[in-house]
Amino acid sequence: MNYSERFSEVSRAMGSSMIRELVASTKNIPDLISFAGGFPSPRTFPKDILSEIYSEVVKTEGTDVLQYGQSEGDSLLKTELAKWDGYPELSLDQSLITVGSTNGIYYYTRALIDPGDVVICEAPSFLGCLVAFEAAGADLRGVPLDDEGIDLDALKAAVSNARAEGKAVKFVYTIPDFQNPAGITMSYQRRKNLIEYCLAEDLLILEDNPYSRLRYSGEAVPTIYRIAQNEYRNTDLVMEIVSFSKILGPGMRLAYAKGNEALIGKMGSWQQKVTVSPDCVTERVAARFLQKNLMDDHIAGICDFYRPYLHKMLDCLKSEMPDYVSWTKPEGGIFIWMWLPEELNADELFIQASQHKVTYIPGSKFYPRGQEKFNCLRLNFTYSSMEQIETGIARLGKLIKSI
Amino acid sequence: MNYSERFSEVSRAMGSSMIRELVASTKNIPDLISFAGGFPSPRTFPKDILSEIYSEVVKTEGTDVLQYGQSEGDSLLKTELAKWDGYPELSLDQSLITVGSTNGIYYYTRALIDPGDVVICEAPSFLGCLVAFEAAGADLRGVPLDDEGIDLDALKAAVSNARAEGKAVKFVYTIPDFQNPAGITMSYQRRKNLIEYCLAEDLLILEDNPYSRLRYSGEAVPTIYRIAQNEYRNTDLVMEIVSFSKILGPGMRLAYAKGNEALIGKMGSWQQKVTVSPDCVTERVAARFLQKNLMDDHIAGICDFYRPYLHKMLDCLKSEMPDYVSWTKPEGGIFIWMWLPEELNADELFIQASQHKVTYIPGSKFYPRGQEKFNCLRLNFTYSSMEQIETGIARLGKLIKSI
Repeated sequence: MNYSERFSEVSRAMGSSMIRELVASTKNIPDLISFAGGFPSPRTFPKDILSEIYSEVVKTEGTDVLQYGQSEGDSLLKTELAKWDGYPELSLDQSLITVGSTNGIYYYTRALIDPGDVVICEAPSFLGCLVAFEAAGADLRGVPLDDEGIDLDALKAAVSNARAEGKAVKFVYTIPDFQNPAGITMSYQRRKNLIEYCLAEDLLILEDNPYSRLRYSGEAVPTIYRIAQNEYRNTDLVMEIVSFSKILGPGMRLAYAKGNEALIGKMGSWQQKVTVSPDCVTERVAARFLQKNLMDDHIAGICDFYRPYLHKMLDCLKSEMPDYVSWTKPEGGIFIWMWLPEELNADELFIQASQHKVTYIPGSKFYPRGQEKFNCLRLNFTYSSMEQIETGIARLGKLIKSI
Repeated sequence: MNYSERFSEVSRAMGSSMIRELVASTKNIPDLISFAGGFPSPRTFPKDILSEIYSEVVKTEGTDVLQYGQSEGDSLLKTELAKWDGYPELSLDQSLITVGSTNGIYYYTRALIDPGDVVICEAPSFLGCLVAFEAAGADLRGVPLDDEGIDLDALKAAVSNARAEGKAVKFVYTIPDFQNPAGITMSYQRRKNLIEYCLAEDLLILEDNPYSRLRYSGEAVPTIYRIAQNEYRNTDLVMEIVSFSKILGPGMRLAYAKGNEALIGKMGSWQQKVTVSPDCVTERVAARFLQKNLMDDHIAGICDFYRPYLHKMLDCLKSEMPDYVSWTKPEGGIFIWMWLPEELNADELFIQASQHKVTYIPGSKFYPRGQEKFNCLRLNFTYSSMEQIETGIARLGKLIKSI
């Protein structure tokens, strides 16, 4: 039977993941050093204590956690998260537990976007969300970043242009802390300016926060959600989504969204249709982990673990790269972003790099379709060993210098 | 901020779940006996052995299962499922693990349905899927059931009518075993006739199979998928989705879809966008449970457990109901369906029943919008005690006789 003619229009347009294909293309290269993934180090997974909690939860609460649960998420987990996150006053209706943060972002998009509506994203941005926006039919417009985060003048221009075309602009998607892929953190002042602009222009803000707690030096900037709440007394403008993938383990598929109650409710309606019930076992285990006050110490341990890898990669880049190459110097997160000279194409370099047994993700993959930059690339520093970082960056530097 | 104007068109049309609201409306009635839910008995959950497996998996395989995994599901779980399910030859590309069966059905629908395309369902049918079809913009057409399953003449008429309107008819959704809500099992001959009709008319079949293994008496009928494979050498026509909710525990959110490789691939593309990675812990625990050969004995135990509850409810109905009421006599599953005389409305009766401290789901909730029948209702027999079944059915019988 020929299936291709049966597929829905959106499905026919859907490619498979470019990043997966890239990673798959290098799979059989022996001794390849990969800075491509976005994987946390398995050495940060708290498996012994989680093993105990899983055992205890299923044995003593199995009657409850092996049963159907509320789509919107375990109330106990919501309550523990609100306390841990510093919002003890948050009501259960203002938060939602989802199957990872992209899942929450998918429901947010479905709740708000009709095909053709405009979503503004940072360019570059997290590809997983860009494809989720596109799956809902969003018209994606990328706005560049500078050292302080999203470029507000470019944002204003993008909004004006879209409106001049008669388009509805629904929200601005941002990863303000240790941005994926650029590693940039939005400054406090920029966050305030963004809030003020969005309030004035009646735009919502979707704040994706997988990394803010992975800070290895410097001072934390309050989240956009917190600034909106504390300084503008507004809890409706921003939806913040906190992922567990980098602080507990992505295999426990959890994230936590908070924001306006009506919007959370609508996302919950989508969730009822898409997954019906959550994985109650996983949710309760996470709740007990928080309740035992294990999270903050655990995260401090992750930061201690990753800090030297970030420094190692920054040191290696400094010693191995020619001076016409530049890169971001994040104080946390898991990625470094590199700019090559305009005439170098990181998609083409990727093939040569693979031959030199080192790999990364070409920067072009992180832009909305048709808005790509090609002289940039993303490096991950949390999955390789110190030796691999040293050797891999040396290989990459040698290659770039040779071109 | 006013959110209602911001929502997407589909989201604005979305109500909250009618069944949830019904169940919530009876929440504070003391001593209420409820036959409303579709919950398995928590006494069937294998919590001790699962507690051990969770502990072991996270401790010894934590490096792997706490990490990101393939969207399409754990290869080990797929392999174990294929063996257990009797398809050892099935390739990994022909199956997909999803977050419960409605989740798989959501991806199936997204892969195939453009807004306005027709989906044929049994009427009555499982509400959770009907709303998932509608969320993708499907035009739902219900076809009645007789004692042998979906009425083929009515199906043919529905397809002809839809085509006469210029509509694309994409697939037939059926729950052939112990149907939810009607408790009817499609006969072997009807399955063959359905396959032949769909092959001739180029329609796909979506076979939802949460209950076939919960058979308490009588002989099993092969699944439509198996008949299509064995007797028509066709593995493309039917997609079968097997849920773990009634055989392991719905809190471990798992289901298993198998069918045409291209369609599975497209569903996997949706899955990448909607959840990115699965809950790898849960998937591996289920794989180890199967690998230890625990499933078949466990299911035999569930059947032994539920059998007397089914018989009890059938006995009570026989002794308590007036002769102008009829009901299905399933040999398995978890539901019995009741027909009242035409002039009785089970939605109205619901309110009186609540006052008499007994509740059920009015049958009208299981029909596509605008196609409701009102003289019918669904009873669940797997969540109440023997005493509750006796008292609850007596209350309901007394009420019906009094009208």
